Amino acid sequence: VDIGDAAQLTALMEPLHAADIADLLEQINTYDRRRLIALYGHEFDGDILSELDESIREEVIGLLTPAVLADAVRELDSDDVVDLLEDLDEPQQEAILGALEEPDRVAVAQALSYPDYSAGRLMQREVVAAPEHWTVGDAIDYLRSHDGLPDQFYHVVLVDPRMHPVGNVTLGKIMRSRRDVKLGDITEEIFKVIPVDQYEGDVAYAFNQYHLISAPVVDENGRLVGQITIDDAMAVLDEEHEEDILRLAGVSDESSLSDTIIEAAKGRATWLFVNLLTAILASFVIENFADAIDQLVALAVLMPIVASMGGNAGTQTMTVAVRSLATRDLTAQNALRVVWREVAVGAINGALFGLIMAGVTAVWFGVPMLAAVIGLAMLFTQVAAALGGIVIPMALDRAKIDPALASGPFVTTVTDVVGFFAFLGLATVVLL
Amino acid sequence: VDIGDAAQLTALMEPLHAADIADLLEQINTYDRRRLIALYGHEFDGDILSELDESIREEVIGLLTPAVLADAVRELDSDDVVDLLEDLDEPQQEAILGALEEPDRVAVAQALSYPDYSAGRLMQREVVAAPEHWTVGDAIDYLRSHDGLPDQFYHVVLVDPRMHPVGNVTLGKIMRSRRDVKLGDITEEIFKVIPVDQYEGDVAYAFNQYHLISAPVVDENGRLVGQITIDDAMAVLDEEHEEDILRLAGVSDESSLSDTIIEAAKGRATWLFVNLLTAILASFVIENFADAIDQLVALAVLMPIVASMGGNAGTQTMTVAVRSLATRDLTAQNALRVVWREVAVGAINGALFGLIMAGVTAVWFGVPMLAAVIGLAMLFTQVAAALGGIVIPMALDRAKIDPALASGPFVTTVTDVVGFFAFLGLATVVLL
Repeated sequence: VDIGDAAQLTALMEPLHAADIADLLEQINTYDRRRLIALYGHEFDGDILSELDESIREEVIGLLTPAVLADAVRELDSDDVVDLLEDLDEPQQEAILGALEEPDRVAVAQALSYPDYSAGRLMQREVVAAPEHWTVGDAIDYLRSHDGLPDQFYHVVLVDPRMHPVGNVTLGKIMRSRRDVKLGDITEEIFKVIPVDQYEGDVAYAFNQYHLISAPVVDENGRLVGQITIDDAMAVLDEEHEEDILRLAGVSDESSLSDTIIEAAKGRATWLFVNLLTAILASFVIENFADAIDQLVALAVLMPIVASMGGNAGTQTMTVAVRSLATRDLTAQNALRVVWREVAVGAINGALFGLIMAGVTAVWFGVPMLAAVIGLAMLFTQVAAALGGIVIPMALDRAKIDPALASGPFVTTVTDVVGFFAFLGLATVVLL
Repeated sequence: VDIGDAAQLTALMEPLHAADIADLLEQINTYDRRRLIALYGHEFDGDILSELDESIREEVIGLLTPAVLADAVRELDSDDVVDLLEDLDEPQQEAILGALEEPDRVAVAQALSYPDYSAGRLMQREVVAAPEHWTVGDAIDYLRSHDGLPDQFYHVVLVDPRMHPVGNVTLGKIMRSRRDVKLGDITEEIFKVIPVDQYEGDVAYAFNQYHLISAPVVDENGRLVGQITIDDAMAVLDEEHEEDILRLAGVSDESSLSDTIIEAAKGRATWLFVNLLTAILASFVIENFADAIDQLVALAVLMPIVASMGGNAGTQTMTVAVRSLATRDLTAQNALRVVWREVAVGAINGALFGLIMAGVTAVWFGVPMLAAVIGLAMLFTQVAAALGGIVIPMALDRAKIDPALASGPFVTTVTDVVGFFAFLGLATVVLL
């Protein structure tokens, strides 16, 4: 799309969903973004801001005039405003808070008082509650006569006189029932209440595990303060996965395609630096066997194969372990059995690939003892890789350190050091 | 929990959600599982089967008596039965189909006629539809007077006389409106219709992108045949992530913690085998420089550092690329800009870590030219790693090959071969 004609542009963007417009803004470069917003910006949909990636949201907000920004923000639900504000600088935060009307401002300020990544940040305060003794007719009359209900709601939450949630009734059940049926008699079987300070990842897990659609959120006294709906839980689940996958690869989990070059380089340098230390450590091991390599240069040719196969086996086990910890399939109950299984898998594949590599080496170098050495070293390294790949994430998890973030360097160190040491050490003993 | 007393066991399991019971069954070993089911199995909740991991579902179904199995399956929604049947052997499939009543059997057989991983497999046939000219009052009267409505529904789908969906009305809007309001006047702004043969990953993407709660599914003639709800889309999103993360690590995406040792070993052997070929290829490169290593053993000590740093930088870029392709943030429009950015990031980090490593080498070996060689080789390798890490997944994606599955071996080959060749080649030219 060539950018130049405001009317044509507006006509083109009109049918697009806010999420698609946000994607478009993310994909064009800074210069085009600036021009697009200058043309389109006299009426900017608040939802577009919500959908934008954090890395360019700040830039876009800076491009909007205060009046347009205020209009955009006023349309949003309280949970979306909170999401918007979390990542902004102080002055931008205040500009947006100033644009809100008094009750909304109080609501947003309240939400921001909950810890980062808590249910309190995620929830919307708009929730439809009814006394537990109400009938279907009472509920319908109430809903018909009240304005200001949330845009989307799927349940009516039943509360006792102290505002403690006691049950959920789906709108479908209410509509299908006669007016004199008591709400308390048609509640859902599955009913989970979420504490306001619960970690958002645990909230997403509960939604996914129990197929929840919405769930009431309660404060420390058990009183209803809001609700979380499944679409927000789905977004959290998506983010958590994104973080896991990036962390496992040693990329900063804040990174995105719209980062600047410097930001992206920084986001990866930490892991590369840790890896450099690991690699140097492995090189010290090799240096100890410099005499052996001097006598038999085939050792230098073959040693990266042992380390590389160990590294890959370690990464495989580690990834399975990190995922199983995240999905809570790996627990204290089955830990021993899983460790044993991983070691057995390592031994089987180690034996298999050790045999293959021994065969290759025998043909390639014609030295049977060298073939035996590399075969044994591979078996040994793969078992060590499996053990490291499962035990290290479990230990980190128990120490409350994110295994996705920290396992990689440790596992790599184990596989490199063991790989070089096993191969060169065995070779020194057997061959020289 | 010690297993022995049926009554006590049932009392303990009673309050548990089906998903939690399924998790429990997954975590205990085969022997305990057999005993638990023998005790608990006279009444087995169908939902537990739905929640069980595929790998042990077959085993559990084999343990149930036909009568118990029939009871369990009859409680389930049609989409859950389809999900259950997909992964079973022919005889088990037929046992379950035989347990269903006629209309359910037809519905399930119909669903199984859609392609694997399509919207048709995911959808439930139970959907509440209304003619587009109905009023709120008509809808409420209809819902009150009809049995057999789905357990959970959030929208009424408006259809034209040919059963083409034309809009969605939330139950909330219906309840809040007067009886004489036309349904056509209170439809949702965002309305997506899903073709029955759409890939389930695309369905999940649409739900996440547009914050859908439920969406009607249509056949090739555009006629309403069912609906998909967000909880099913969330489960698909979760599975897709799981697949991506496992594939990136070279683990079979079918694998789970309840696999047997042999299954697990198989699931990882393919990637290890490919990696072995890659590693041998890299060793051929090293062998070409055997003379150089013979003359200067420090080359053997340092070369793994160059390859390892390149491999890590390549994995970082590749993971970002694979994720961005999966979330559709990386498209033909911004491809060139992203490639350029990645190469620039590689150059910056390559220069940084090249300098650091040159410094380390100068101190360690006291040979300034060796320091210059390793610095340059690292810069060169990291740029190549960045280029490979971004271009290879993009090319695979364009060739309709899953980049998460196939990128790893190619990227590793590039970084290993370039790393060893750059370092040893430069060293030969400059030092010897």
